[in-house]
Amino acid sequence: MLVGDSLRLVGNCVGILAGGGPLPGQVARAVEALGHSVFIVGFQDFAEPHVIEPWPHRYIRLAAAGEILSCLRAEGCRDLVLIGPVRRPSFSDLRPDAVGARIMARIGRALFSGDDGLLAAIVRVLGEEGFAIHGAHEFLSGSVGRSGVLGRVQPDVGALADIRRGQDVVEAIGRLDIGQGCVVQDGLVLAVEAMEGTDRMLLRAGECRQPGRPGGVLVKMLKPGQDRRADLPTIGPDTVWRAVEVGLRGIAFEAGATLMTDPAACIAAADEAGLFLIGIGDGAVGMRAARTGE
Amino acid sequence: MLVGDSLRLVGNCVGILAGGGPLPGQVARAVEALGHSVFIVGFQDFAEPHVIEPWPHRYIRLAAAGEILSCLRAEGCRDLVLIGPVRRPSFSDLRPDAVGARIMARIGRALFSGDDGLLAAIVRVLGEEGFAIHGAHEFLSGSVGRSGVLGRVQPDVGALADIRRGQDVVEAIGRLDIGQGCVVQDGLVLAVEAMEGTDRMLLRAGECRQPGRPGGVLVKMLKPGQDRRADLPTIGPDTVWRAVEVGLRGIAFEAGATLMTDPAACIAAADEAGLFLIGIGDGAVGMRAARTGE
Repeated sequence: MLVGDSLRLVGNCVGILAGGGPLPGQVARAVEALGHSVFIVGFQDFAEPHVIEPWPHRYIRLAAAGEILSCLRAEGCRDLVLIGPVRRPSFSDLRPDAVGARIMARIGRALFSGDDGLLAAIVRVLGEEGFAIHGAHEFLSGSVGRSGVLGRVQPDVGALADIRRGQDVVEAIGRLDIGQGCVVQDGLVLAVEAMEGTDRMLLRAGECRQPGRPGGVLVKMLKPGQDRRADLPTIGPDTVWRAVEVGLRGIAFEAGATLMTDPAACIAAADEAGLFLIGIGDGAVGMRAARTGE
Repeated sequence: MLVGDSLRLVGNCVGILAGGGPLPGQVARAVEALGHSVFIVGFQDFAEPHVIEPWPHRYIRLAAAGEILSCLRAEGCRDLVLIGPVRRPSFSDLRPDAVGARIMARIGRALFSGDDGLLAAIVRVLGEEGFAIHGAHEFLSGSVGRSGVLGRVQPDVGALADIRRGQDVVEAIGRLDIGQGCVVQDGLVLAVEAMEGTDRMLLRAGECRQPGRPGGVLVKMLKPGQDRRADLPTIGPDTVWRAVEVGLRGIAFEAGATLMTDPAACIAAADEAGLFLIGIGDGAVGMRAARTGE
C-alpha cells in the first residue's frame, strides 16, 4: 500500500492526539510528507516531550475534553489521529472539564467496558463532534507489520501449531473484549492477557514456562471487529528483547494491523536473538484459511 | 445427597492418592465412616505429614508410577481417589521409574496439554490398569459447595451481572483448556487465569483493580466437560481472606462441583469480611437457565 493510498483528508491540518512512545512523531513526519500541516495535542503525563516538541503542540490533560476540542478547532484540524499508549485513567484522577463530563455521560457504560469498547466509544463521540478519525496505520504504511516471516528465523512445525492455538485463544478472549494476546508453549497456554498488559503477561509467561521444551510463542491479534483507528498492537525492539528475556522463541502478530515502532531494529534484534517474527491473519500465511476453509 | 448415595465401591479398601492440603484426611475419615479401610499414597513433597500420617500410608514420588501401582495392589485397593493439589512437575524433576516411563508414553501428548487434558489422561490410564476412580466429592458431600448464597452477604444486581460475565469468560477459556477462573469488576475483566493458578491471578486482579467502583468478583467454574474425578476447584478460608485482601466483594463457585476445605470457617470468614459466597451453575440460581433457555 502506498502512503495515502486510501486516505481521504477533510481539511489541511491533521490533529494528532498523542500518548507515549515514538509513533506520534512518526505520524507527524508522515503528515508533513503528504504536504499537510500538523498540530499535536500531547496527553499530559503520557506524551514524550522530545517526540512531540519538534511540531506545533500543546499539552492537555486527558479528561479536559472541552479544552482538547476547542484547541483542535482553533487550529483548524478536522482530521484526527489517535496514537501512542495511555494508561487507563482511574476515575479519581480524571477530573473532567465541563465538556469532558458531558462526553463521559455520552460514552456512558463503555467508560467501564474493556479497552476496545471504550476506544470505540471515544472514536464515535469524536465523529459526532464533526471530526474525521483516521488510523495511524493509514499514514505509517511503512511501519505496518506485513504478512509472513520477517527476518531470518523461521518458525518450525511445532511453533506454527502454537501460533494456531494462540490464534484460537486470542480470538476467544478478544470476542469477549478481554485482551489481545497470549503465550503458548508446545500446546500449553502459559498466560492470557487481560488488564495487566502485554509486558506483565510476558513476565508471567516466563515464570510459568515449562523447562525441557521449546520456548513459547507470543501471539498478538486484534479483537474481532476491533476499530483499527485506535489501539493497534505495537511491537518495538524492546518487545523483541523482552520476549527473548522470558525465553520465547517467536512473536506472531496480526499482519496489516500491527505497528512496528522501528521495523529494521525489530528485525535486527530478532535475527540477533534467534527469535522469529511472523505476520499472521489476513489470509497471510494460509494457516487460518487452511483450517476453516474460509 | 447422602454420603455414599451414588457410590459403588469395587473392593473394601480405598486408596487415596494424596497431594497437599487437608482434604486427603477428610476423605480418609469419610471412607472409614462408610465402614471401609483406607490406604494413603502421599505424593512426596506435596502430601502433608500431619494430614496423612493418622492413616496407613506411604510416601512415593509422583513419577514412580510402578511403585504406586504395586503398593496399591499389595494393599488390596481397587478403588482410588485423587485429592489435594500437586504442582505440575517439570520434566527434569520427574525421573519416572520403568512403569512410570511406560505410562508417560501412554499419556503421550496429554502430558503437555492443559491440566484438564493431563488429569483426564491419568484417570484413563488408572482405569486401564484395573482401578475404579472415584471423585472426592462422592465421599465429601458435606464439603461440596451447594447452590445459592452461603452466609449472610447477598450479591447485588451489579455483582450478579459481573458473575454472568465471568461465567461467559470462564466457559470460553475452559473450552480451550486454559483455566478455571477470572475476576470481573463492574463489567471489566481484570484478570484471566492460565498456568499461574488462582492465587497469583487474585494478586494481579488486585493490582489492576479500578478505584471508585464496587469490588470485583472471583468466578471459578469447571471446564466444560471436565472429569469431576480430578482437580475440582477448592475454596478454603484462606481463599476468602485472600479475596478480601485484594479488594474483591464476592466469590462465585460452581455449585455441586467445588470442594470447601472447611465450609463453616469459609462462611464465617466471608460474613466477617462482608464478602458474598454464591454457588452458581447447575441451574442453581436460575441465572444461566434464564439466559440460554436451557
